[in-house]
Amino acid sequence: MIDFSKLDKTIHEKGRLSIMTLLASRAEAWPFQDLKSELDMSDGNLITHLRTLSTAGYVDSIKITGDGRPQTQYSLTAPGRKAFLDYLAILEQILDLGK
Amino acid sequence: MIDFSKLDKTIHEKGRLSIMTLLASRAEAWPFQDLKSELDMSDGNLITHLRTLSTAGYVDSIKITGDGRPQTQYSLTAPGRKAFLDYLAILEQILDLGK
Repeated sequence: MIDFSKLDKTIHEKGRLSIMTLLASRAEAWPFQDLKSELDMSDGNLITHLRTLSTAGYVDSIKITGDGRPQTQYSLTAPGRKAFLDYLAILEQILDLGK
Repeated sequence: MIDFSKLDKTIHEKGRLSIMTLLASRAEAWPFQDLKSELDMSDGNLITHLRTLSTAGYVDSIKITGDGRPQTQYSLTAPGRKAFLDYLAILEQILDLGK
């Protein structure tokens, strides 16, 4: 039987799940504005979720300054990628059992 | 890109997700006590989640009386199974994008 207690609540919340999925979908970091437009999320929600994920050690950010406006970019940390892969493993179990 | 707005919140909540997965895992209905022991959930939580899923039209219940104590059994409705399959389809998209 699936151990649902292992389903990481930090990741499972719908907004954070969408962010983690996007960050995991490519190696390059994601600029804040790209995340915002892709996820159709308000600045406030996105900032709150990113802060929660950073506090959990799952997401890193770096500030890019240079020509034009400074930009913050986000990417998964190694523990974040591991936590997300563990999370996906449970999704696979749900799919196996549920279909 | 995945449309996370389609991720059904009634199903996505962790407790209800575990119940829907169990109910979908076999054709036969699930007695309350079996759900409770399999999911390691309190009576109160399980009753609350089952009520939410019934209100949403996703779960049906029938009371079995006969020898011994009366027993309530739960199963997915047709709309419930459809909603769960739609939910699983989004999980598959997350897996495709996230791995």
